Amino acid sequence: MSPKKSASAAKIFRAAESPATTSEMAFRAAKDKLRPALIALQQRLRTEARCPVIIVLAGVRGAGVIDTLNLLNTWMDPRWIATHAFDAPNSEQDRYPAFWRYWRCLPAAGAMGLFLDGWYDTVLGLDGRAAKQEVDRRQLIAQIATFERTLADDGALILKFWLHLDEAEHKQARRKHGHTADPILGLEAADHAWRKHLPYKRYRQAAANVIAATHTRQAPWHIIGGQDANHRRLAILTALHNALTRHFAHKPKRAPKTAPRGATVRNDILKQIDLTQTLNAKDYAAAFRRLQPRLYDLQDAAHTAGVPSVLMFEGWDAAGKSGAIRRLTYALAAPTYTVVPIGAPTHEERAHHYLWRFWRALGGAGHMTIFDRSWYGRVLVERVDRLIPEAMWRRAYDEIQTFEQHLTQAGVLLLKFWLHVDPQEQLERFKARANDPNKRWKLTDDDWHNRRKWNTYVQAVNEMVRRTSTPNAPWHMIPANNKKFARIAIMEIVAAGLNQALAARGHR
Amino acid sequence: MSPKKSASAAKIFRAAESPATTSEMAFRAAKDKLRPALIALQQRLRTEARCPVIIVLAGVRGAGVIDTLNLLNTWMDPRWIATHAFDAPNSEQDRYPAFWRYWRCLPAAGAMGLFLDGWYDTVLGLDGRAAKQEVDRRQLIAQIATFERTLADDGALILKFWLHLDEAEHKQARRKHGHTADPILGLEAADHAWRKHLPYKRYRQAAANVIAATHTRQAPWHIIGGQDANHRRLAILTALHNALTRHFAHKPKRAPKTAPRGATVRNDILKQIDLTQTLNAKDYAAAFRRLQPRLYDLQDAAHTAGVPSVLMFEGWDAAGKSGAIRRLTYALAAPTYTVVPIGAPTHEERAHHYLWRFWRALGGAGHMTIFDRSWYGRVLVERVDRLIPEAMWRRAYDEIQTFEQHLTQAGVLLLKFWLHVDPQEQLERFKARANDPNKRWKLTDDDWHNRRKWNTYVQAVNEMVRRTSTPNAPWHMIPANNKKFARIAIMEIVAAGLNQALAARGHR
Repeated sequence: MSPKKSASAAKIFRAAESPATTSEMAFRAAKDKLRPALIALQQRLRTEARCPVIIVLAGVRGAGVIDTLNLLNTWMDPRWIATHAFDAPNSEQDRYPAFWRYWRCLPAAGAMGLFLDGWYDTVLGLDGRAAKQEVDRRQLIAQIATFERTLADDGALILKFWLHLDEAEHKQARRKHGHTADPILGLEAADHAWRKHLPYKRYRQAAANVIAATHTRQAPWHIIGGQDANHRRLAILTALHNALTRHFAHKPKRAPKTAPRGATVRNDILKQIDLTQTLNAKDYAAAFRRLQPRLYDLQDAAHTAGVPSVLMFEGWDAAGKSGAIRRLTYALAAPTYTVVPIGAPTHEERAHHYLWRFWRALGGAGHMTIFDRSWYGRVLVERVDRLIPEAMWRRAYDEIQTFEQHLTQAGVLLLKFWLHVDPQEQLERFKARANDPNKRWKLTDDDWHNRRKWNTYVQAVNEMVRRTSTPNAPWHMIPANNKKFARIAIMEIVAAGLNQALAARGHR
Repeated sequence: MSPKKSASAAKIFRAAESPATTSEMAFRAAKDKLRPALIALQQRLRTEARCPVIIVLAGVRGAGVIDTLNLLNTWMDPRWIATHAFDAPNSEQDRYPAFWRYWRCLPAAGAMGLFLDGWYDTVLGLDGRAAKQEVDRRQLIAQIATFERTLADDGALILKFWLHLDEAEHKQARRKHGHTADPILGLEAADHAWRKHLPYKRYRQAAANVIAATHTRQAPWHIIGGQDANHRRLAILTALHNALTRHFAHKPKRAPKTAPRGATVRNDILKQIDLTQTLNAKDYAAAFRRLQPRLYDLQDAAHTAGVPSVLMFEGWDAAGKSGAIRRLTYALAAPTYTVVPIGAPTHEERAHHYLWRFWRALGGAGHMTIFDRSWYGRVLVERVDRLIPEAMWRRAYDEIQTFEQHLTQAGVLLLKFWLHVDPQEQLERFKARANDPNKRWKLTDDDWHNRRKWNTYVQAVNEMVRRTSTPNAPWHMIPANNKKFARIAIMEIVAAGLNQALAARGHR
């Protein structure tokens, strides 16, 4: 993952720096074959909607990045291509984790996203706030590699193009700029004007390092010489055509849906939770009265100070998640928090990576986002009900850790709760719901279905807690047989978390 | 539309200021009937997905707004209710027209949106930047009334609750605050703490004026006394239940799909366009070379100065919209513009008002958003192909004018282009496309279908241009039989528009 101290730029760019040209006639002949084929592939992509296509366009100034952007939109149906070029992050984007702006504009299955410089602007020193420290740069490169692997693992087709010029050509391109007679070539003006001028040698070495560290089988770099427009255009057209053709030739083999392994759990974490803890009405009321104004003040301060938080509730059906969330939010000012209930994904959500909807739902600086169920559905219901192959939920532990790292590294206070009840208590609550006309709707067939899988869930929960408890994002296991106890325990943890987050920023 | 100088607050709030109470027993009895019915109605709403439900909650501080918010989320399935409480606009939101933040979070058909203070915060002086001028206030009230009518016309069910207290109760509520022993009543603390204290008498009069001016059949205010929690809760529950019941009792009568009227058009605007205008290759190249750097500089300046623009292209099939857009964007820096191609609406878009997706696609300050086809589809294809009843597209002229006013009033440079060709030219281009393997995909059955309806379109275009050309958002009719002429004409208009917009802000 981590880049070599200095990749061999000469080796990486050798072919691209050797003049290669394609005659106009050869280009036209090849294009006239490739382009209709590409259109057909794009239509098939859209119809089958099997995966999104992500294209990163980067390169040396003057090497034709903008020309490529325009041509891709010309060669194919632009209705299914969205182009994304990012300014230096604006004040709004700075309120979110760094990758938020990429996640939210990822294409849906069947569509293409064209990303100018992709997520490489900072690491290449293009966004005006280059990662100065080597350690920052290495961390960012590792994040990029993980990001691309996560998308590719989910089936995304990723192509990255580096358009290159050698130093002499680069200088010549700069001189030429502004003196272009041909209006069609004139489009390179925008390329020149937009793309910052960076000292060639340093930029070339930085690019070589980044390319070496992020060139993977799943997200390969195509290094293309930009000197000759015909050569460059044909190379891109061919690479794209071949990648799509390979994609459709490859039958996605559905991994066998293996049964979850036997239900014995060593060191059952859930067993260690003391479910006998209770709180009587009087103590509950007293704690509530004490905590409510405290929580109000803390979240008010966090809101003012721009400290964001993400609270996430998982637990058995009828464990009291919604009730606990409601008691918590009673204490908060309405504009400072959002409750996000997570159910089955919508049409649009299903067409994206499973983490996409959680990225989209994140609040900005100072906002508290409360998830009622969460991304852990991947390793709970989707695992237990075998909705996805084993390899997918196994992979998800790392994906989730990465997602949560993005949050905590951006200064988000992340609190994860598991609300635990025992099977007897759950049964009583189910019965009570069934008998209460006001609450009957809360009890569904799914609840009874999940209850029958209790032991399989125990195993899944144990593995989940073990694999995703990290120093910055530990699980809080809440004994919830007694609702009053659980609610106060949660409020205490939230108050302590906010207090600590504020203190860490010097606000307490 | 415009409010009376001073509505009679005494009359409006009479009932709400007379103490009305409901005993605990009466409340429970009524609730136990109403709540299961409400759940059933909510499920039916979701299943049939006929319309969105929009609930505005506003009122005097201490009258129970937050309590109502919590109870609605308790009484119903919170997964289908999204709550929206708005801070004073943050720096990001200030980059957009004022109603942008409301539009983008409107619920889809089948869902409910709970809006705390709704779009009334500014007009009630709650958002910290009260409309100080009477004329501003009147204009804002008119905008609110139009906004609600637009949504209701599209089928949205709108309920607005004003929770009230008389002055003595209001004072008492303020005294009580902080001394509440019951943790369940404690939730009112958040209401108190959050909602600004405003001088009672002035606030009451402002509210009366606003209520009088925005109380319509389609979006009525329910004025509810907040003194007695049982009375208040029951009143809200009942109003919501009744509104939903009425909604389902009411069979939506499909308006007859009347044929567009005869195809004679007086003063055919399209006939007046001089289609003989051409530009030869040399003049084209010269103009292109002159305009390209100019456009680059202008949009660069607009980007820096925060001047947003919306460019919108309509025209006959094969009139050259996409080509013209591409030539224009050749000259622009990629991060400063977005092209939004408009096709058939997605699943999610169909579940919203037809203008929703255009609001969502708007760029912020300094950004240029280019629509390839647009909201005018409502009065073009949807009218001509009778996809909607006549009343709907007739109404759309006003709706579109309002939408465009929101843009121009927020300082958006709005440029609307109609690209005109004659039927002979179109036929030649269709044939050329059919014969070019690279372009064959661009020609669809729709194109031939639309061509057969040429005369009906002529009528629709004429009416559209007449009804939606306003001083701030005129139509630019572009002769496009000659592509070179059309492209340069458009670039000239965009350059002039940007220049003027910058000059108006003192940047030129």
